[in-house]
Amino acid sequence: MATAARWGALVPTGRELRSIREGALYHAAAVAFLKNGYHGTTLDDIAAALGVKKATLYHYVRNKQELLFRCHMAASDVTDEITRQIPTNGLTGLEKLQRALHGYLEALLGEESSNLIMIEESALTPENYVQVIARRDQFQAVLLGFVKEGLADGSISTGDPKLALFAILGGINWTQKWYRAGGPWGPGKIAEGIVRQMVRSIAADPDKALSA
Amino acid sequence: MATAARWGALVPTGRELRSIREGALYHAAAVAFLKNGYHGTTLDDIAAALGVKKATLYHYVRNKQELLFRCHMAASDVTDEITRQIPTNGLTGLEKLQRALHGYLEALLGEESSNLIMIEESALTPENYVQVIARRDQFQAVLLGFVKEGLADGSISTGDPKLALFAILGGINWTQKWYRAGGPWGPGKIAEGIVRQMVRSIAADPDKALSA
Repeated sequence: MATAARWGALVPTGRELRSIREGALYHAAAVAFLKNGYHGTTLDDIAAALGVKKATLYHYVRNKQELLFRCHMAASDVTDEITRQIPTNGLTGLEKLQRALHGYLEALLGEESSNLIMIEESALTPENYVQVIARRDQFQAVLLGFVKEGLADGSISTGDPKLALFAILGGINWTQKWYRAGGPWGPGKIAEGIVRQMVRSIAADPDKALSA
Repeated sequence: MATAARWGALVPTGRELRSIREGALYHAAAVAFLKNGYHGTTLDDIAAALGVKKATLYHYVRNKQELLFRCHMAASDVTDEITRQIPTNGLTGLEKLQRALHGYLEALLGEESSNLIMIEESALTPENYVQVIARRDQFQAVLLGFVKEGLADGSISTGDPKLALFAILGGINWTQKWYRAGGPWGPGKIAEGIVRQMVRSIAADPDKALSA
């Protein structure tokens, strides 16, 4: 990869530029897939949304399927980073869950999101599908761990932890279906409200959860 | 429409038979659309799932688009019936909401469901889209009315009622994404657990909501 001449720290390196362009590409693709479905979207549509030629996209991905796969992988990179930043000690299970879900939902609604949680995964090839689901399962396993911690430390009260987590994730993921950027509430405020409410559904002390 | 000879009340009339067949058709179509998407499904697939010839389907619908539309309309007929059965007096807003959501989710997961809530509506023609969304909005307006009643009678505690309802509907609708018939818990038990938890997220007295 060619490295651009640097003008102090203000000018990104070639590697940084590529990463910025990839992010923009994945986001544009995710927006198109969410709006028109995978089969209803062409690489031409995505190139047009970015204001570049279709040939330019081939410097980054081989085809539409790889682009769909990369969107999912980029979204999993984000969730990995969010859970990595939750401290192991000093927080209840409920607090850890709340932090992780807040970071997750804020990223899901953010301007750089390439998260395709609302899309059927059936458009992925079997090999790609396996990898996407494995990484999503990994994220859910971390969240489920927080729920179980909360049950053990008394901050969470629920029957089946997995069922409870699925219900909460539903309330959160569904936001992608109705949220439109540019409304009166930004991603941060929406994320705070939704996550607080969802966490309250299993909080041992719901009033405390509401003011957390 | 031809009316079959009746053998007491045990033998359905021609009209009843047609209604049963339509229900089976919409359900088979919904299952296929949910699994493979609208564009990834053919009328041949649906006919095969029902064990009939494709030509037979044309006695019921003109094309795949009409079938998609009918699935949505049939699902709205179900939700209309559910909300119609909620008594106006003698229940708090929270209790009305809980009853309506329980009926809705049980139907959504049921063996006769033709609800396509998880599918992008982008596959509908603009004229059909307007009708589908209008009826869905009608259902949401009834639910929102229950939330507001609950705020007024003190059974519900929440900030923005619409945001709160969207979060709850997310937790409920999302069930269609992960629920598979034939698991250890049937639709009734899943619906009870999920709805109880979701309603708890905005209940003024969460412990009461849990045991409702």
